[in-house]
This record gives sequence, C-alpha cells and structure tokens, in this order.
Amino acid sequence: MSRAPKSGFMLYGDPGSGNCLKPKWTADLLGIAHEWINVDVVKGETRQPEFLAINPAGQVPVARWPDGRVLPQSNAIMLYLAEGSRIIPESSFERAEALSWLFWEQYSHETAIAVRRYQKHYLKKPDTDIDPALSVKGNLALSVMEGRLKGRDWFVGNGLSVADIALVAYTRVAHEGGFDLAAYPSVDSWVLRTEDALGIQHARNPA
Amino acid sequence: MSRAPKSGFMLYGDPGSGNCLKPKWTADLLGIAHEWINVDVVKGETRQPEFLAINPAGQVPVARWPDGRVLPQSNAIMLYLAEGSRIIPESSFERAEALSWLFWEQYSHETAIAVRRYQKHYLKKPDTDIDPALSVKGNLALSVMEGRLKGRDWFVGNGLSVADIALVAYTRVAHEGGFDLAAYPSVDSWVLRTEDALGIQHARNPA
Repeated sequence: MSRAPKSGFMLYGDPGSGNCLKPKWTADLLGIAHEWINVDVVKGETRQPEFLAINPAGQVPVARWPDGRVLPQSNAIMLYLAEGSRIIPESSFERAEALSWLFWEQYSHETAIAVRRYQKHYLKKPDTDIDPALSVKGNLALSVMEGRLKGRDWFVGNGLSVADIALVAYTRVAHEGGFDLAAYPSVDSWVLRTEDALGIQHARNPA
Repeated sequence: MSRAPKSGFMLYGDPGSGNCLKPKWTADLLGIAHEWINVDVVKGETRQPEFLAINPAGQVPVARWPDGRVLPQSNAIMLYLAEGSRIIPESSFERAEALSWLFWEQYSHETAIAVRRYQKHYLKKPDTDIDPALSVKGNLALSVMEGRLKGRDWFVGNGLSVADIALVAYTRVAHEGGFDLAAYPSVDSWVLRTEDALGIQHARNPA
C-alpha cells in the first residue's frame, strides 16, 4: 500500500468550496497529476446514492485512485499528497504545530468563516437571518491568526506549509462572509503572500 | 527542535473532556511521563488571562514543555506523542486514513456527540432545550462508524491506532448525550475493545 502511487487520482470537489481547493492547490503546486470531478453541493449532489457509495459521510472533497483507494477530508488528502515535500516541516515539533493549525482550522475557523460565507454568499441569506454567533466566532478566529502572524511571514517555520494552505482557503474569501480583513493587517498581507506562493488569483482584487 | 524530548510535559486539561483524555491515554499507553494540570472549562478557567497566555485560542487540552514549546489541539498532541510508535500505521496510505478519521472526528462527530453531551450532562439542559439537529448529526456520525466497523476490529489496519483513540473519547460516553449505542452493535463492541486496549474503565458499565 505504501508504494501505491499518489498521482493519477480523481478529486471530487465543488469549486466554490475552500476545502476542495486545498488538495487541488497542493497537487498543482507539487505537480501531482489528477483529474477534477465537479460535485455541486448546493444542488445536493453529495447526498445522491452514487456519491454516498464513494464517501458514506456525504462530504467533499474525496480523492479516489484507480486501484480503489478512497480518501476523504481536505486536510488528510493534502497531508498525504504533501508527505515528504517542502510544504511539510522537517522538524518533528514543527510538523506537530502544522497539524495543530490544521485541526484548529477545521474546528474553530471553517465552522464560522466558511459557514457564514455559505449562508451569505451562496444561500443569499440576509444578515438578520444569520446566527450572530458566527460573526463573533469568525472574528475570534481572525484575531488568533493575527496574533500568530505578528512578526512572522508563515504560520509554521520559515516558508509556505500545509498550515498556510489550509488556513488561506476560507480566509481569502472571508469578505464574502462579511468579514473585514482590514482589521487584521498581518492576516491581510499573509493572504496575498500565500496566494502568490500558490500561484493563484488574489480573491479580493482579481486581475 | 526535532530532538527535543517528548516526555516531561504538562498537560492542561479537564477530566470531563474526551478531547483532553486523548493525549493523556496516549501518553499513558506509550509510557511518556507528564503531569496533568486540571483546568475547569465549566467554571470558565479557559477564558482567564493566565490560561489565554498559554493558549490564545482559549481551548484545552494544551501541552507545554519546560523548554517553552506549547502545543494545542487534542489530535495534534496525540499524533506528536505517538509519532513512530505502534499506534501510527506504518503504511503511508493507512496513515492518511487515520488522519482522515481524526479530522472527521473533530468536524462531524465531536461537534454533535460531545456538544449534546455537554449540554445534557454538564449544563443539565432538558432535551426540549437542545437543538434537535445535534441528535440527527450525532446519529449520522454513529451510522458512518457502524458502516466502517462492520467486519473490522479497528478503524485503520489490524490494531489499535490513533484513529480509535480519537473516536472512542466521546463515543464511549455518548449515552451521557442521550445516544443509544445498542442501535450500533459494531460500534458498541469496538468501544469495549478499545477501552480494554487502553486499559481504561468501561464508561457504560464501570466496575
């Protein structure tokens, strides 16, 4: 199993989902060949039987290899693809720090910033219909990031790592959820730095 | 940094929190010396300035080493302590599967089962005051686990791994959140198997 190739997989994802873009950016950055297969979350395609047969948890992204291997969870796919590459810190403790940010992102960041963006930007809910706790929680997450990035260019170590990729996915589109990055200047400049390192468009000021 | 010792750390945690017990069980299983420091979440101790100075995210568990290293996030601490041990799968893809279950646990399991347990068991909310979505989401998570465990003893590979430790933390006390494991027989027997492998008490039928 451990010698099974990483390239040549199908990546089932929704292009509006930051979670789905994380493994795509990682594969593109590291030159790992793959095929993107569009799954429309808003249209309910993740709840259809043919998708549930691939991932019983009904979530995107999922990576599937021709030999039958299936791997869900954005951060797990990203870590698998990136194993042994320059975007995984070399030191044991820095690797642990990167993992810590990845778990924090899924628990304390995505659950506020991505959720508020989904409701506002995709479901077009008026602000008055959105749970005010999402705004409080999202701004708390941005404050924690601002504190970490004061005087640092990257979340862990001295270069781009999986932690930056995971965290930028929804931070770069936080304005679509009604969050104002002008209040978080270190986060704001880190977003541009990370987008440049990944070779992707600046989400707030697309060319 | 990578040669810094793993033993001799302080583990700040609340004994009622499954998240805090994960790194404790891992350290105990692997014989990694540490000191447990009680932090009472219900009393608000994670929001006090002296705790926020250790973890600005205001969450337990946190591990702190005498040389100043600080590591939050239950699953990240557990992975750091377990690195290179028998509870991390040897194959690259099985390691990725274990990580995938860890992320799923924090996103889709803890957020329903632990949250409903906290409201019911610790805050003593009557069922009618608890968001019914928590019960639906928690039972969906238990169904996903049941599907995985049909015909298998462990979540990944052929023995206890970090995935089992992470998932058992709140599954073993799911009844305190009003969930009935009798409907999930493979999960039910896996809980006992995992408690035995960790050498901890059976939560539902304590001796």
